[in-house]
Amino acid sequence: MPLQEPLAYPDKWEKDMTFRRIATEEAFIVPELAELFHHISRTNWSSLDIAILRINYRDPTGPRVRRLLDLEEERLAEMDREGVAMQVLSLTSPGVQILEPGLATDIARLANDRLAETIARHPTRFAGLAAFAPQDPAAAAKEMERAVRTLGLKGFILNSHTDGRYLDDEFFWPVLEAAEALDAPIYIHPRCPSDGMAAPFRLKEGGIENGNFENAAWGFAVETGTHAVRMILSGLFDRFPKLKIVLGHMGENIPFALWRLDRMGGVPRNRNISLQPSAYFKRNFTITTSGVECHKALAFSLDMLGEDNVMWAIDYPYQESGPAVTFMDSAPIADAVKHKVYAGNAERLFKLSPGA
Amino acid sequence: MPLQEPLAYPDKWEKDMTFRRIATEEAFIVPELAELFHHISRTNWSSLDIAILRINYRDPTGPRVRRLLDLEEERLAEMDREGVAMQVLSLTSPGVQILEPGLATDIARLANDRLAETIARHPTRFAGLAAFAPQDPAAAAKEMERAVRTLGLKGFILNSHTDGRYLDDEFFWPVLEAAEALDAPIYIHPRCPSDGMAAPFRLKEGGIENGNFENAAWGFAVETGTHAVRMILSGLFDRFPKLKIVLGHMGENIPFALWRLDRMGGVPRNRNISLQPSAYFKRNFTITTSGVECHKALAFSLDMLGEDNVMWAIDYPYQESGPAVTFMDSAPIADAVKHKVYAGNAERLFKLSPGA
Repeated sequence: MPLQEPLAYPDKWEKDMTFRRIATEEAFIVPELAELFHHISRTNWSSLDIAILRINYRDPTGPRVRRLLDLEEERLAEMDREGVAMQVLSLTSPGVQILEPGLATDIARLANDRLAETIARHPTRFAGLAAFAPQDPAAAAKEMERAVRTLGLKGFILNSHTDGRYLDDEFFWPVLEAAEALDAPIYIHPRCPSDGMAAPFRLKEGGIENGNFENAAWGFAVETGTHAVRMILSGLFDRFPKLKIVLGHMGENIPFALWRLDRMGGVPRNRNISLQPSAYFKRNFTITTSGVECHKALAFSLDMLGEDNVMWAIDYPYQESGPAVTFMDSAPIADAVKHKVYAGNAERLFKLSPGA
Repeated sequence: MPLQEPLAYPDKWEKDMTFRRIATEEAFIVPELAELFHHISRTNWSSLDIAILRINYRDPTGPRVRRLLDLEEERLAEMDREGVAMQVLSLTSPGVQILEPGLATDIARLANDRLAETIARHPTRFAGLAAFAPQDPAAAAKEMERAVRTLGLKGFILNSHTDGRYLDDEFFWPVLEAAEALDAPIYIHPRCPSDGMAAPFRLKEGGIENGNFENAAWGFAVETGTHAVRMILSGLFDRFPKLKIVLGHMGENIPFALWRLDRMGGVPRNRNISLQPSAYFKRNFTITTSGVECHKALAFSLDMLGEDNVMWAIDYPYQESGPAVTFMDSAPIADAVKHKVYAGNAERLFKLSPGA
């Protein structure tokens, strides 16, 4: 059944090749982590993340793993075919955050090295966000510095909570200090709701038969939106005023919630903060269109946040490149804004070289 | 500090007295329940709801309790002053749902009787939604029938979860059967996240100093939005196709999430449902503007849901009537749509007599 009005966009669209398209939430994996995920997928681990691990990694040679592992064959061919100039790559969710700290740090380093090698072979087609292990904040800060200064990566990927803890927790401040000092953004990617908020997401059905309730349909946004709102209302951005955060999925519902966040969570009621929540959101956050190909939501977000605060993304290989291009090409917004969403904002935020 | 652009609307506005204004999420309490809430507010009860009970009921003679108890003096005077024709009254959150079943049913009956008496004295100024105790679904169904058929109430008020259980739970189906048979909507009002999703909302600060994170700023929408999404993705509206649900606060973020709900939680991936989530949302839900005085969010919601699916609300006495009127009067939408949002949609949904 097709998406119903008013949620549809054209099936066919003549691609406009004057746009430089930089996709900003594009996933990959290294075989070592895919193997760990495969083993975890065969346990009765109680985290909600288990359903996704089972779907994607139970078959270690299945199409999902293959498309995540591939960087230079099928992926580049699809980019060529769909007119995607560049993918900003990041290690896929839940990344290293479900591993014990030492192993997590090792896998993060390994993944970052591989990522840098791939980028070195295709410097105009790929850029990368570095993995890090927040379980060990001091080691994470060290790896973050290495990733930017030595490997040339452009920012960082975090998959929401770590053992039920969120970035406003003082424990993680070394990570935030490193990101701010390196002037490199942290992309907070979703994972499923933490154990402490998991109960309403545990349905009888389980897994994909429930319509991805606990993950992509709703749980991801609840988890990641709650993470971001915690950070904003805690006053963290007064302590780290230059910290840059990226949220996918059209901002995890926060753009729509800004008025109420200001009214109910803002100054003067909230004594932690000096600015209104919406002011932090516009100053410290950039959102991407990953997995939300809705023209109305795009226009609303641009209107609320401004044309410098939205970036295009595909969410490859979880989403297809073609529809993501059609969605953006056919969006009823000015070409100048489209250029910013497709490339300009990513070039500025991630310090990418402008296209030829 | 005033709300910042683009979130502001005019401070002063000449009220347009041609509009009939029906406010649809307006709270009251009966003294018997206020006294129970006062006693609970002095415990160390672990539910997140406790912060609100402490703020509102610790002082049993404070202004909040006074304004909730008052129906015919200060309230009617404010309605006259601000041009509000009618309030659709409902027993305030968390209502009877935190009481043991027998007491909850007794208080619901008592509150419904009092509500009907008040409406009988002011039939053009008040209508009412009936309380019920979902803890005892059979008794609830009986009271729902009495409330509509004998007392003339126009629908029902539910404060999201009951003991961590949601309306898609078969346990509550007698309640849904009653509502559908009576052709009367259930307004799902927020309460704080249930214990099973409370952990990320337990901050060190607690209470109002954290900017109402766990309640009005964010937690309410997480709890109530999750409730509604559970219902939609479960297939409940195939079983109860005529069931009408009302959500406040501009739809608890769901309008903004509809595209992704369809893509990730819809047909054919979700085998529970026969329609797309957005189709159920447009068929079975109506949203209200309570506590979200944001013109952009209003326009977006009307665009996504249609002009028949949005109703005006103040959230009196938690919000002031004047700004809610100014917000709606000054909204850049056609007068014909404004008439529907202000009155027409409520008249149809709640079967109210059209105004003179």
